[in-house]
Amino acid sequence: MTLLTELKPGALKLSRIIAGAWRMGDWNWNAQQRLAWIEQCLERGVSSFDHADIYGNYSVEDLFGEALALQPQLRERIQLVSKCGIKLLSDRRPEHRIKSYDYSSTHIRESVENSLKALRTDHLDLLLLHRPSPLLNADEVAETFAALKQEGKVLHFGVSNFSPAQFALLNSRFPLVTNQIELSPLHLDPLHDGTLDQAQELRTAPMVWSPLAQGRVFTGEGDQAQRVRGTLHKLADQHGVAVSTVVYAWILMHPSNPFPITGSQRMSVINEAVQALQVKLSAENWFEVWQAAAGHEVP
Amino acid sequence: MTLLTELKPGALKLSRIIAGAWRMGDWNWNAQQRLAWIEQCLERGVSSFDHADIYGNYSVEDLFGEALALQPQLRERIQLVSKCGIKLLSDRRPEHRIKSYDYSSTHIRESVENSLKALRTDHLDLLLLHRPSPLLNADEVAETFAALKQEGKVLHFGVSNFSPAQFALLNSRFPLVTNQIELSPLHLDPLHDGTLDQAQELRTAPMVWSPLAQGRVFTGEGDQAQRVRGTLHKLADQHGVAVSTVVYAWILMHPSNPFPITGSQRMSVINEAVQALQVKLSAENWFEVWQAAAGHEVP
Amino acid sequence: MTLLTELKPGALKLSRIIAGAWRMGDWNWNAQQRLAWIEQCLERGVSSFDHADIYGNYSVEDLFGEALALQPQLRERIQLVSKCGIKLLSDRRPEHRIKSYDYSSTHIRESVENSLKALRTDHLDLLLLHRPSPLLNADEVAETFAALKQEGKVLHFGVSNFSPAQFALLNSRFPLVTNQIELSPLHLDPLHDGTLDQAQELRTAPMVWSPLAQGRVFTGEGDQAQRVRGTLHKLADQHGVAVSTVVYAWILMHPSNPFPITGSQRMSVINEAVQALQVKLSAENWFEVWQAAAGHEVP
Repeated sequence: MTLLTELKPGALKLSRIIAGAWRMGDWNWNAQQRLAWIEQCLERGVSSFDHADIYGNYSVEDLFGEALALQPQLRERIQLVSKCGIKLLSDRRPEHRIKSYDYSSTHIRESVENSLKALRTDHLDLLLLHRPSPLLNADEVAETFAALKQEGKVLHFGVSNFSPAQFALLNSRFPLVTNQIELSPLHLDPLHDGTLDQAQELRTAPMVWSPLAQGRVFTGEGDQAQRVRGTLHKLADQHGVAVSTVVYAWILMHPSNPFPITGSQRMSVINEAVQALQVKLSAENWFEVWQAAAGHEVP
Repeated sequence: MTLLTELKPGALKLSRIIAGAWRMGDWNWNAQQRLAWIEQCLERGVSSFDHADIYGNYSVEDLFGEALALQPQLRERIQLVSKCGIKLLSDRRPEHRIKSYDYSSTHIRESVENSLKALRTDHLDLLLLHRPSPLLNADEVAETFAALKQEGKVLHFGVSNFSPAQFALLNSRFPLVTNQIELSPLHLDPLHDGTLDQAQELRTAPMVWSPLAQGRVFTGEGDQAQRVRGTLHKLADQHGVAVSTVVYAWILMHPSNPFPITGSQRMSVINEAVQALQVKLSAENWFEVWQAAAGHEVP
Repeated sequence: MTLLTELKPGALKLSRIIAGAWRMGDWNWNAQQRLAWIEQCLERGVSSFDHADIYGNYSVEDLFGEALALQPQLRERIQLVSKCGIKLLSDRRPEHRIKSYDYSSTHIRESVENSLKALRTDHLDLLLLHRPSPLLNADEVAETFAALKQEGKVLHFGVSNFSPAQFALLNSRFPLVTNQIELSPLHLDPLHDGTLDQAQELRTAPMVWSPLAQGRVFTGEGDQAQRVRGTLHKLADQHGVAVSTVVYAWILMHPSNPFPITGSQRMSVINEAVQALQVKLSAENWFEVWQAAAGHEVP
């Protein structure tokens, strides 16, 4: 079973549902358990894994790589995405004196080498710049990307949380394949601020983080969250699926072809995400969720 | 007498003042009276008529078409603009369960067929997407536009109320000729949010709805409306024309070459709009209105 | 000694630190003193001088030109930048009835002729449109620029305080070399609103006005100013330079290659600006200032 879909015509294919390893450090699993999770994801067609150098205080890539090392032949069946550029204040990076961004050639290269080593792999399928930085020198980044690609260390490049202007700048120097953004029924901004218009225009499908608003679609207290929850429950009943399945289907329906990331350790939750690929909401269903989120009907 | 002007170089010509049929359903006229209104508009050079499927609760196109059927040879002297994409809650559309947008090929085609039938014509000169929708699939819309054009059912295509990013997206797939937007001395946003910069850059002249702010330039109570009204009256006196003529002249002066829409049933009001084509405000006059609207002088 | 740097590849070179003549009218100097100031700037490599028709109530260009006339051979060693388009209410322009903008061919030409005459020169190296105007007709401006260039009266053209959409519009008709904008630790907007992303994308280096926030980095009372001042003082101590040197270095570090303008009559202050060209802040230093200005760490 495969869910592989092109992020951009002719470019990298990822699984349409992506497994986020963000919280793997909190799962308190041994390497065998982590390997089991990877294998179970693969069984469900979820073959792309989202990382960042900083996840788990710079520890998650290593936890994942340790598991992968138990079955190295899995590497060719999975796609590895990682990110670089945020410098956290951390006991593992005592030289950092302030939280900052760094897209110097030196730092990007150093971060990629760390990721490759931690993940026990010789290449990343996709490297993302984690946050836009006012100090990003597009020429320097483009040169660094070209060199890393030439060396076979990173096959494709994208960004995360970039505004349309920031995306246009770097894309003018080096072809980007995606912008990983936050989108959920409780975070509608990218629908209206040009981010998804640009993604559709350039045919660069977005990756989506926090599709469930970090659980607030289930537990949020505010008026918006309660309205959205009511609508999601109604649609879940109508379609005979879980609430989270409705949310993933709602996101997948956008014409920019989003690739949602699920961050769960539980297969039951990942199943609910994968199931969304079979659910067909109506356009009216989509606008019911939008209306509940916006608090008013469309103009 | 003709006021025909290109919306875009080489594309459709419309009359520079456009007659909006929006409220025709409220005029309580018989077909003969409606025909007289059309003919009187034509006598004034106002040969382009602005419609939408939904105007008058899905009734106006039919009222207009009924009148046109009394003198079918008028069709070749007028330009018909209509819109699609909003699905209203309406007794005439009982299948709608929520106000929403629909730019599926199926809905666009269905709406165009309805418009053609109601207007008693075999083609629209211009079809606009009425409101931007997050669910708009630009490839699907472009294919549908191309087919409708090929079939001779719609000659030109545009949008309404689109942001610059939304316009750029669809325009990247199919050449649009206009963005119909709200602009008036009480609604300055398009002057400053990039909408009219883009229109001028792409040489796609905007159509303008509510140039009189739905009458608020005459009757608005707030500070802004009162300041603007004072300035408009002063300029009307200076130029020896009606207040509404000053407003139309103020809009016509913008270098994006706007095509204002007048929504009135009364020829005296339409005369005031047409007269604006002969009025030449000074740049200082223009900024007097802007300053009254903004509440401060330019920076 | 030269600090000449290209504003745009293949285009005009200006000194990286630019002397602003804005306040020259307040200095109460005679022509000899003004000439001395010009010569002292040149000794420091500050060979580009920023003017506008309206500075000092339409008087500064003449004060500068009077000084330059004492040593006309200096002209070939300096670059003259001026601006046009704002019409001030002024006893020197009694025909103005309201503060407004004017980018008609007539006004641009008239303003350039005035600037040339006042500055006692036969050409401007760079002419900027001072503020964006909703009434700017890009075709008319482009034609006027082309004619002025053809006639040798103005060598290069740019704008000031333009949004990205406004810049894109005019740049689509005539190649602009710069956007002169406000940027300082107390005015971060251009870092985040697309202005500097566009500048970097198009390789049009920005000129920067009010890099010291008109002195508020030294004297500002608010929380933001106090936080920023604390950080600047710390960095000044660390690097063994003046506070203002840190600010200039912070601005110069941006990858869009800004050209800051210093508006001081005192050589000690200009020295501090020039010295910034030798100071290398770390990326962490840069983000310390950003964080103090923003009031929170980066996301």
